[in-house]
Amino acid sequence: MAKELKDLTKRADNYSQWFNDLVVKADLAEQSAVRGCMVIKPYGYAIWEKMQQQLDKMFKETGAQNAYFPLLIPKSFLSREAEHVEGFAKECAVVTHYRLKAADGGVVVDPAAKLEEELIIRPTSETIIWNTYKNWIQSWRDLPLMCNQWCNVMRWEMRTRPFLRTSEFLWQEGHTAHATREEAEAEAQKMLKVYAKFAEEWMAVPVVQGVKSETERFAGALDTYTIEAMMQDGKALQSGTSHFLGQNFAKAFDVTYLNKENKPEYVWATSWGVSTRLIGALIMTHSDDNGLVLPPRLAPIQVVIIPIATKPEQMEIVNKEVQPIIEGLRAKGISVKFDDADNKRPGFKFADYELKGVPVRLVLGARDLENGTIELMRRDTLEKETLPLEGIVDHVEKLLDDIQQNIFEKAKKYRDEHIYECDNYGEFKERIKDGGFFLCHWDGTAETEAQIKEETQATIRCVPFGVEQTPGVDMVSGKPSKARVIIARSY
Amino acid sequence: MAKELKDLTKRADNYSQWFNDLVVKADLAEQSAVRGCMVIKPYGYAIWEKMQQQLDKMFKETGAQNAYFPLLIPKSFLSREAEHVEGFAKECAVVTHYRLKAADGGVVVDPAAKLEEELIIRPTSETIIWNTYKNWIQSWRDLPLMCNQWCNVMRWEMRTRPFLRTSEFLWQEGHTAHATREEAEAEAQKMLKVYAKFAEEWMAVPVVQGVKSETERFAGALDTYTIEAMMQDGKALQSGTSHFLGQNFAKAFDVTYLNKENKPEYVWATSWGVSTRLIGALIMTHSDDNGLVLPPRLAPIQVVIIPIATKPEQMEIVNKEVQPIIEGLRAKGISVKFDDADNKRPGFKFADYELKGVPVRLVLGARDLENGTIELMRRDTLEKETLPLEGIVDHVEKLLDDIQQNIFEKAKKYRDEHIYECDNYGEFKERIKDGGFFLCHWDGTAETEAQIKEETQATIRCVPFGVEQTPGVDMVSGKPSKARVIIARSY
Repeated sequence: MAKELKDLTKRADNYSQWFNDLVVKADLAEQSAVRGCMVIKPYGYAIWEKMQQQLDKMFKETGAQNAYFPLLIPKSFLSREAEHVEGFAKECAVVTHYRLKAADGGVVVDPAAKLEEELIIRPTSETIIWNTYKNWIQSWRDLPLMCNQWCNVMRWEMRTRPFLRTSEFLWQEGHTAHATREEAEAEAQKMLKVYAKFAEEWMAVPVVQGVKSETERFAGALDTYTIEAMMQDGKALQSGTSHFLGQNFAKAFDVTYLNKENKPEYVWATSWGVSTRLIGALIMTHSDDNGLVLPPRLAPIQVVIIPIATKPEQMEIVNKEVQPIIEGLRAKGISVKFDDADNKRPGFKFADYELKGVPVRLVLGARDLENGTIELMRRDTLEKETLPLEGIVDHVEKLLDDIQQNIFEKAKKYRDEHIYECDNYGEFKERIKDGGFFLCHWDGTAETEAQIKEETQATIRCVPFGVEQTPGVDMVSGKPSKARVIIARSY
Repeated sequence: MAKELKDLTKRADNYSQWFNDLVVKADLAEQSAVRGCMVIKPYGYAIWEKMQQQLDKMFKETGAQNAYFPLLIPKSFLSREAEHVEGFAKECAVVTHYRLKAADGGVVVDPAAKLEEELIIRPTSETIIWNTYKNWIQSWRDLPLMCNQWCNVMRWEMRTRPFLRTSEFLWQEGHTAHATREEAEAEAQKMLKVYAKFAEEWMAVPVVQGVKSETERFAGALDTYTIEAMMQDGKALQSGTSHFLGQNFAKAFDVTYLNKENKPEYVWATSWGVSTRLIGALIMTHSDDNGLVLPPRLAPIQVVIIPIATKPEQMEIVNKEVQPIIEGLRAKGISVKFDDADNKRPGFKFADYELKGVPVRLVLGARDLENGTIELMRRDTLEKETLPLEGIVDHVEKLLDDIQQNIFEKAKKYRDEHIYECDNYGEFKERIKDGGFFLCHWDGTAETEAQIKEETQATIRCVPFGVEQTPGVDMVSGKPSKARVIIARSY
């Protein structure tokens, strides 16, 4: 697709604009004609496919199976769980009619085709799934039941941004049913760990794992576990959540099972999901003023090879020399693009693949041929070096691992340098403007939480796991606090 | 999931009921609470995943890339292409509001949240995609543009049947843009061949390839190519279509490109799709009165191994003996289920895996151990034989290929035996009641076509490719005919 490589906005000038620019310039996504809905372009979708592939494998290893439930949910289902409907009613797309008819050279909604009961485009599928599970679960032998679906959902958002917050988005939602509270809680925590592992090992995005405050919980959950990542502006991005739903949906949809003593009991539930938002996290964690920086394990193109020669006979030799390298890399399962298009200058290609975040660039020119060398650039550091052709395949294979590790370490270092303990609310109010995660004591009340949000636009991201906690004093209310929470501004 | 293995309806008694029974009893799908929308259960979805995996690979080999376009389409887009809107307006689910509000302990649609322009849930995505392609195509260098998306679509159907005709269904839709008419026509035909290859080599379903009559074309196409399969009741099932759209959508959405002489020209288009309907074709082509018969290449479980022993110490030995077989099969990429559940009798398991269409069943009992043998049953013929344990892995590998081939041959034989040339309308009217494909001369008029449909409920499925054609006389009108077409009743 023809496109000029204009300079990106610099992160330091306007981080938010940099992100919006990059999404479009790197061909990841664009606004569609429908308010708040994006088109995910092939390059962006290829990243999503790589994410799906790995996550799907990890889910199946836990015993979950894929299934598919209807897009549309009867309006009355939503009302069955009181908190759930309160959480989602305000952003529901509603189907009211099932036919159009011709009028004035166009079409209008046919008033005769009004639905008896309106249907909601799923904002999440707990209600329709638990209405189905009712028929699938009779006895303890039917448990646990663990289904996942990959699908689109719709939440009518007023302010949208590509990948971060869109009215329609793609996601996966796992819904599990268990015989006991303990088992369901363990499942919710296990899936949080799956998400954390994926974020850190595949996306190279370090995350804080923790549990949400009551205010920030999923509508209908008893506990919401979360992974929170820190973007380069110090803001938090909630990147995946796993919910312990207790018996709320089992009671709302009357789902019981006969236990081993043949007594009916309500089923215990979890749900868990990640979405195309992960692509937003990926972009904002690693990328720079030259464009995307992609972790090798999720990069649609891992290595690009660009031949340079002025004369056709030279090009022929270069092309011949490069074939064993391409084959060698592909034999190792590395995805390679060989770009010998003659209608673009090398400089244009260099900038374009930098913009697209291809982890490794190899350039083979006529001079290299004489010397038996090849030029390599790694995208994460932009360092170039000239290497012997001999052994280049093994070198690249190892380098891809190094890059994966390096960008994780870099992001982790940045993140760790921007986590602060803070016990003074005045100081907090000043410093939160520059971003970062603040470990602060909290008295556990929704009032204090609301006051912080009101006065600083920051929210409690989670009570973090794995942090040694000692009691203290809430920095706002002065009341006693059992533990520190992470407070940050967020996307 | 607990479930009694009740007898299926026999095909001879009621073919239609047999199909409906089988879908439910084999755990493929079930009706949901939403009219006309089904829940695809894990076992049914696993078949769809296998189909997707292979088709996706084949699409990518043609150069198509995946992308994602919005679920919702502005109503006005639909009207831009006159035939398109006429074809789809009557079955559109319409979103009119974007919020609910609390009322009387439930929720109602918030009248204040009415959309300015209604949005349609995509019945197919030509309009939203061509509106997007407009921005992606400037010059001949941007062509061809070939995107595919895997997604859900919605067509409000009055009479629905699982997999065959549902209001919501899953599918893939490819949309391509080309510089010339020839290229677009070639693409549409190429994708038809991809579908035919998939149907025959993976689904083991023989298909007739051909072109639709004008009446049966996709709304907005200049030509619709189709693959038509014959079900066991002799009815046709349209299993995939590929459309040459000419410049209709390019003109409706004003999509032009600058050719090599720098002159603007309208782009040429195709679209092509297959859906979860393929699962219906799979079921109705191969399955029998005992349940599903799945082609090994698409079976979620290819081999089930059931150990039989009465004493625990025997079971231990059997389990030990069976491990190298499981490992050997898995090492060959064969999916194996080892079912040693002790809460179900072997007879129950046998019937259940027959119902689910697992291609090969291995049973290892105490007696076998003494003799160094194992019992094998192939699902397609229900033949049992006792084989030496030695070499069983290689035997099974080869057998899976044989079964794949055998069910294709069987279906092809049935199909070929039920294709008839017919030149007498009186005879046709009698014989069509028993099903089959009728090769008849047709005068090419929509009037004759309508008369046949009206009087026999049969339709022109296609003008078949690869059939030697000689001119003749239309059996209905007596007018001259250039070629024979295939006429059949269909799903």
